[in-house]
Amino acid sequence: MTTQQDLFESVKEQTLLLQLSALSGWDALTGMPKDAGHFRAEVDAYLAEKTFQLSTGAKREKLLINLEADGSTLDDLGQLVLEKARKDFDLTGKISEEDFVAFQKTLSQAQDFWAQAREANDYQIFKPYVEKIIGYLKQFMPLWQTNEKTPYDVLLNQYEPGLTVAKLDHVFEQVKKGVTTLRQRLAESGNIPDDTFLHRRVTKQQQSNYSMAAAQRLGYSLDKGRLDDTIHPFMEALNRDDARITTRWDENNFQMAVLGILHEAGHGLFEQNVDSKYDNARAVLPISMSIHESQSLFNEVMIGRSKEFWTAEYPKLQAEISPVLDDIGFDTFYSGWLKTEPTLIRTEADPLTYPLHIIIRYEIEKAIFNDNIDLAELPALWQAKYKEYLGLDVPDDLTGILQDIHWAGGSFGYFPSYALGHLYAAQFRATMIKTLDFKAIFNSGDYSPIFNWRKENIWRHGGAVDPNKILEEVTGETLNPQYWLDFITEIYENAYGL
Amino acid sequence: MTTQQDLFESVKEQTLLLQLSALSGWDALTGMPKDAGHFRAEVDAYLAEKTFQLSTGAKREKLLINLEADGSTLDDLGQLVLEKARKDFDLTGKISEEDFVAFQKTLSQAQDFWAQAREANDYQIFKPYVEKIIGYLKQFMPLWQTNEKTPYDVLLNQYEPGLTVAKLDHVFEQVKKGVTTLRQRLAESGNIPDDTFLHRRVTKQQQSNYSMAAAQRLGYSLDKGRLDDTIHPFMEALNRDDARITTRWDENNFQMAVLGILHEAGHGLFEQNVDSKYDNARAVLPISMSIHESQSLFNEVMIGRSKEFWTAEYPKLQAEISPVLDDIGFDTFYSGWLKTEPTLIRTEADPLTYPLHIIIRYEIEKAIFNDNIDLAELPALWQAKYKEYLGLDVPDDLTGILQDIHWAGGSFGYFPSYALGHLYAAQFRATMIKTLDFKAIFNSGDYSPIFNWRKENIWRHGGAVDPNKILEEVTGETLNPQYWLDFITEIYENAYGL
Repeated sequence: MTTQQDLFESVKEQTLLLQLSALSGWDALTGMPKDAGHFRAEVDAYLAEKTFQLSTGAKREKLLINLEADGSTLDDLGQLVLEKARKDFDLTGKISEEDFVAFQKTLSQAQDFWAQAREANDYQIFKPYVEKIIGYLKQFMPLWQTNEKTPYDVLLNQYEPGLTVAKLDHVFEQVKKGVTTLRQRLAESGNIPDDTFLHRRVTKQQQSNYSMAAAQRLGYSLDKGRLDDTIHPFMEALNRDDARITTRWDENNFQMAVLGILHEAGHGLFEQNVDSKYDNARAVLPISMSIHESQSLFNEVMIGRSKEFWTAEYPKLQAEISPVLDDIGFDTFYSGWLKTEPTLIRTEADPLTYPLHIIIRYEIEKAIFNDNIDLAELPALWQAKYKEYLGLDVPDDLTGILQDIHWAGGSFGYFPSYALGHLYAAQFRATMIKTLDFKAIFNSGDYSPIFNWRKENIWRHGGAVDPNKILEEVTGETLNPQYWLDFITEIYENAYGL
Repeated sequence: MTTQQDLFESVKEQTLLLQLSALSGWDALTGMPKDAGHFRAEVDAYLAEKTFQLSTGAKREKLLINLEADGSTLDDLGQLVLEKARKDFDLTGKISEEDFVAFQKTLSQAQDFWAQAREANDYQIFKPYVEKIIGYLKQFMPLWQTNEKTPYDVLLNQYEPGLTVAKLDHVFEQVKKGVTTLRQRLAESGNIPDDTFLHRRVTKQQQSNYSMAAAQRLGYSLDKGRLDDTIHPFMEALNRDDARITTRWDENNFQMAVLGILHEAGHGLFEQNVDSKYDNARAVLPISMSIHESQSLFNEVMIGRSKEFWTAEYPKLQAEISPVLDDIGFDTFYSGWLKTEPTLIRTEADPLTYPLHIIIRYEIEKAIFNDNIDLAELPALWQAKYKEYLGLDVPDDLTGILQDIHWAGGSFGYFPSYALGHLYAAQFRATMIKTLDFKAIFNSGDYSPIFNWRKENIWRHGGAVDPNKILEEVTGETLNPQYWLDFITEIYENAYGL
């Protein structure tokens, strides 16, 4: 007889392999020796192969079938793990092992060549790999497709259950309209905040000291994490006691690392506070992208761009980097901190223009998978859309199409999650402020009420509950972009003195 | 029919697992979050279990038996891999899988508790784990024993084929006598070099800049390696393109990091220059400890304590850390650099007193395994021997019995390899200087003739040839401790003006 224990053991092994993949992935992007890529590609392919066999092999299938036929040994957790393992099985199980392993190897190489292409500032080095990845996805998508109406819906659905091009077109239209109106009002006001002081020199050490102290005040634990340098910042969690964040530094732009670290620490906070009962089932209970992003963006935008937070934190920042900002009063600081300006780099964008970067990527990905555009046109398409939406000329690949690691990781369909993350974060905040006085909390220096609310309502569930469901249960309504538009309007009106 | 290819595939998988274990091991000692130890112990135990199954399972046994019966598909490499895989099989295959996995898990925990014990400066925290490890080894040793005459010989033999207590007692006697005589002569000379300038403040960054530049002049490649901080320095190689070194820092004792980095870079040089034909068979072709140490110690002592090297390097060191040593002339520097003084910490010992640290550990390990002493007596025994051999009172556990990680890793029988490494290094040097003019090479700034000699004669063989055999083939004779005694006498007489 097949029991819950049999399933748990199999899923635990999968979770152990996931931890190894996470360690390898983190290492590859935080200082693995340059020449070691070819060896690492083999190691990663091996882990992918073992994971594939475990999650889609005959043994797993038999476990699923038997437990679906007789679930008498299953408790609530067992039932959940069974459902998720089945979903996992159906997703990857439709691809041949050979293709799957080859795809994983391609992804590993692609990340290597993406880094090399960035070094050489030359998309051509990366081009064959991105095309290979798209080729694989187009090959796999018909196998994944169930009732999705367009090919790109298939990819969207993998990151966010039930997300469609139809829904996104609608939400993005509302967001685009709201952002455009607000940007016009700000421009017409004639007020241009001074932010030159944000480019005064602050050493890496000072930036690190302040940012990590702030991240820890928000609850990020260094006993369960660490900070490393990388090219494109990310958080990688091996387990809830090992959620590592990364950043990059610019000594003439400390805002980048401060907000970047708050962002990644938001991801880390989520992972560090998942209920321990899910420890061994992490491999089949991944946290959805949008809700993960809602927590990193909650840190970065809902807190890191808010007046309540900076009223309390600005003196701490001033003290840490003194005398750099000693002559800058709070109002000047906060106006500069929120100055909006179109940028070439998505991760350097302010919260107001950020959605436009996502909409550009969304439209390009939609064109790749739904309109089958000529892939040779990608850089030109990228340039055209940056001109159209943000009014910017893209001068080179490094500040253009090579800026994101996502495509190198095969993560097409992921970018919209960032935008959903913004919207979710604002909707959560609107609920929180009904019972929590953010201003009083930040002024008290003890941020634990915010930490506790997030842990209780969101983090502890890990990937066990779908984001839509959490959103509805916690906020009492389905996704409503108006909360985000209201928040963003409030902070920018405030900063621009409207 | 079983072919060479079948064996190679199995050994390659073992090598992939080894790379994962190496990455995990390196990570655990270079900043893994403090709380993550319990998760990591499970991951390490899983890797150990998989490796154990692969290298000792029925499938491997069948491969070995079939290829031993019909070796028609084997070339030279195949024959070598077969022999080594058989040795590997016989070594671990005699232990039950359950015991083996439990042992590996204990080792993983022990390293965690060793670090915690060091933090608390309290051996009692580590004690249960060291005793557990010794218990396992005593349980395993009868299974490993073939024709060894004493239990401790069984352990020695694992690190150095054919090494025995009888041989070591003899060699150590000769070394002890030579060292004692020389130390007396130095003491009687009344010359005490001034080394206070070695304790002037040199920043971590300056130490790192100089040491890594020197290591790279000796051939260590940062494209195939990296430097990290740790408690107890080590080199960990995932593969020949990923040989990582570690160090610790004391801003008031730059000699420690300079020599430590040269030492670990010596290990790294070896790994980085193994012939690529052994890439996939690394798991069954480990490099023996003594010859590995001979190369780290060649860097640290034969080069890093030699007058020829420092005549060329001292101006470079002075320039990097200027003005710290601007007022110290070369003769004063070199005398101070070689000042001999007994120390509590093995890794801080000078080359003259170093063998005494090894002899202490050798005698304690011999007492544990051959005389079955009461393990509660270990700290007292440690203290007594430091008093007897080095005239030192051990004030606490941190500077005493907790200083080495080896026992936490189960590496009993390993320490003598360090002493053999010293002796091998000196014997290699004696052969090298017949054809290479070290003084001229260092003065030229191009150290490649030394690099090339070592690569050609030693490194490229990796673990394919036994150390004894390399020593004999390269130097034309068996182990002769006199070369080491001659070298050490020469440099100390020189430094002490005798």
